[in-house]
Amino acid sequence: MTITSRRTILSIICILYCWCSCGTAVQEARVQDFGIVIHGGSGNIRNLSEQEEQRYRSALQLALKKAYKILESGGTAIDAVQSAVVLLEDDSLFNAGRGSVFSSAGRIEMDACIMNGQNLQTGAVANIQGVKNPIKAARAVLESSDHVLLIGEGAADFSRAQGLTFREHSYFETQARYKKYLKAKERNRVELDHDDKMGTVGAVAVDRFGNLAAATSTGGLNFKKFGRVGDSSIPGAGTYANKLCAVSCTGVGEYFLRTIAAHRTASLLELSDLDLKGAVHRTLNEEIVPLGGRGGIIAIDHKADIACDFSTKAMFRAYKNSKDEYLVGIY
Amino acid sequence: MTITSRRTILSIICILYCWCSCGTAVQEARVQDFGIVIHGGSGNIRNLSEQEEQRYRSALQLALKKAYKILESGGTAIDAVQSAVVLLEDDSLFNAGRGSVFSSAGRIEMDACIMNGQNLQTGAVANIQGVKNPIKAARAVLESSDHVLLIGEGAADFSRAQGLTFREHSYFETQARYKKYLKAKERNRVELDHDDKMGTVGAVAVDRFGNLAAATSTGGLNFKKFGRVGDSSIPGAGTYANKLCAVSCTGVGEYFLRTIAAHRTASLLELSDLDLKGAVHRTLNEEIVPLGGRGGIIAIDHKADIACDFSTKAMFRAYKNSKDEYLVGIY
Repeated sequence: MTITSRRTILSIICILYCWCSCGTAVQEARVQDFGIVIHGGSGNIRNLSEQEEQRYRSALQLALKKAYKILESGGTAIDAVQSAVVLLEDDSLFNAGRGSVFSSAGRIEMDACIMNGQNLQTGAVANIQGVKNPIKAARAVLESSDHVLLIGEGAADFSRAQGLTFREHSYFETQARYKKYLKAKERNRVELDHDDKMGTVGAVAVDRFGNLAAATSTGGLNFKKFGRVGDSSIPGAGTYANKLCAVSCTGVGEYFLRTIAAHRTASLLELSDLDLKGAVHRTLNEEIVPLGGRGGIIAIDHKADIACDFSTKAMFRAYKNSKDEYLVGIY
Repeated sequence: MTITSRRTILSIICILYCWCSCGTAVQEARVQDFGIVIHGGSGNIRNLSEQEEQRYRSALQLALKKAYKILESGGTAIDAVQSAVVLLEDDSLFNAGRGSVFSSAGRIEMDACIMNGQNLQTGAVANIQGVKNPIKAARAVLESSDHVLLIGEGAADFSRAQGLTFREHSYFETQARYKKYLKAKERNRVELDHDDKMGTVGAVAVDRFGNLAAATSTGGLNFKKFGRVGDSSIPGAGTYANKLCAVSCTGVGEYFLRTIAAHRTASLLELSDLDLKGAVHRTLNEEIVPLGGRGGIIAIDHKADIACDFSTKAMFRAYKNSKDEYLVGIY
C-alpha cells in the first residue's frame, strides 16, 4: 500500500470517527436533561444589607455558572459539583474552607463529602485542618484510597501525600468568624441552633449522561468541642447520590444525622409514591422539623427535576438546568 | 378523720396501686414480644479448633443471656444492646474494646455507635483511644451531649469528663492481634477484605414495650491508616434503629458506608413489600455483594422477628426471643 492511499484511509477513519462522536454527543444532549443545584447554607438570616445580599448572589451565580458550563460542555456531574463547592470554599462568605468557623480550641477543622451516584463511590474527610479545599481531599479519598472516610490528622496526612494544597491558619481565618468565636468563648457554650446563617455549602448535579453526584463541605458549628462531627461529611446523612437522585443538606447537623436525611430523601423517591419535591418536603418538614431540627435540603433527580426546601427563614441557593429553570435566591 | 381510718384509706390506695401496676405489666408482657440478636463479626473463619469454637459460643451465650434477662425483667432495648456489646468488648476474642486490632501507628483506635429507635437518639464515637468500653462512650454522647458523633481525642476528653473508665494500651493489646499487626507492617498495607474473622460486635433488640435499639462496636481494620473510619460508628451505615426495626452490620465497612446499609434495610422494610428477612437479604446480597463487599447483617423488628444473613463463610451470632426462637451459631 502506498503512503498516499494509507493517508486517504486514515483521513476517512478520522472523518467517520468525528461524525460518529458528534452524532453521539447530539443524541446524548437530546435524551438527557442536565442541571445543577447549589446551596450556601440556611438559617434565620436577617438584616443583610443590599450590598451584602449582592455579594452572596454574585458568589452563588459564579459557582453556578462555572459548574453549569462543565455540564453543558459534556463534563461529569462529579466534576461539576466539585467545581461549585471549591468556589464556595474559596469564598470567605461561607462557612466552608476559607471563612470556616472556629472550634473551641481556636482551630479550624473542616468536614466534606463527595459521592458519585453512578457507582456509589464516596470520599469523605472530617475534622481536617489546613487543606485549602476539603472537597478536593474528599475527592482524593474517593479516587486514590480504598477507604470512604478519613478523619483528623490522618486525613490531612493523606491529603498531603496526594499533593493537595495546604494553607496556614491565617488563610482560613476571617474577622467575622473570629468575633463569633470570642463571643461563644465568653459564654463558653456551643449553640446548636443559632439564629444566624449556618453557611455550609453543597451542590448536586446530573450530567448529560444521566450520572448524578452530590458534594457538601462545612466548617461545622462555631465553638464546637470534643471533635464534634455533623452530617455534612457523613454519607447518607448530609450527602448522598445514587442512580435516581443526588441530595445535599444544611442545617443543624445532629438532626440530619439522626434521620439519615439525604439517604432518607433518596429512599422516599425510590420506594414511595412521592416525587422529588415530595420526598424532600417530607424528610425536612415531617421528619426533621418534628424532632426540633431546622435547615434545608437541595436535590436533583435523573430527569434534572429540582427540589429546594428549607425550614429556616432563608437559604442561599441557586439552580439551573437544561429545561430553562433558573434561580438565585436567598429568602 | 381518725388516724385508723386514714391508715385504712392509705392501705386501700396502696392495694389499688399495686393491682393496677401488676395488671399493666402483665398486659405489656402479653401484647409485645421481645428479643435480642447479637453478632461477633463475620468472615471466612476456618480451622477453628473445637476448643476455640467452644470459647466463641460461650462468649456469645453469656452476652445473649445477660441481655435477654434485662428484656425479660422489663428493661429497655437500649440497655439490653449496651449490656451485650459491653460483654463482647470486654472479651479479647473479638475485635472491639479489649482485643481490638492495631492501627498502622501501633495504636488501638475504636469506633462505636448506639441508637434508640423510639426517638432516633443516637450517640457515636470514632477513633477513640483508651476508653474501656467504647459503647459506653457512645451512650454518654447520646445521653449527655447535644451531639451525635464525637471523634479522636475530643471523644476521649468527653468520655473522661463523663467519668468513664479508661485503661492503658496494654489492657487492649492481645498477642494474636499484635502478630497480625506485625505481619501487615511487614507488607506495609491494609487489607480491606482479608480471609479472616473481622470481629466487629453488635446487638439489636426490641423490648416488652416495643422500643427498638441497635449498637455496634469495633476496632476497625488491622493496620488502618490515615484516621480511617468504617461503618460501625456511622449512624445509618453500620448501625440504625427506628420504630420498625433495628439493624447492626459487620464486614468490610467501606461497602456498608457506600450503601448506607443499616438504614437501607430499614427503608426497604418500611417502604417496600419485603419483610425483615427479605430486606436484610436484598441489602446484603443484591446491593453490597455486587459492589464487591462482604459481611453480615443482623436485624430485629417490632414484632421480635429476627433476621441474620452473611455473605462470608461464617458469622458469630446468637439470638433469643420471647417466641422461643433461639440460636448460637458460627457457620
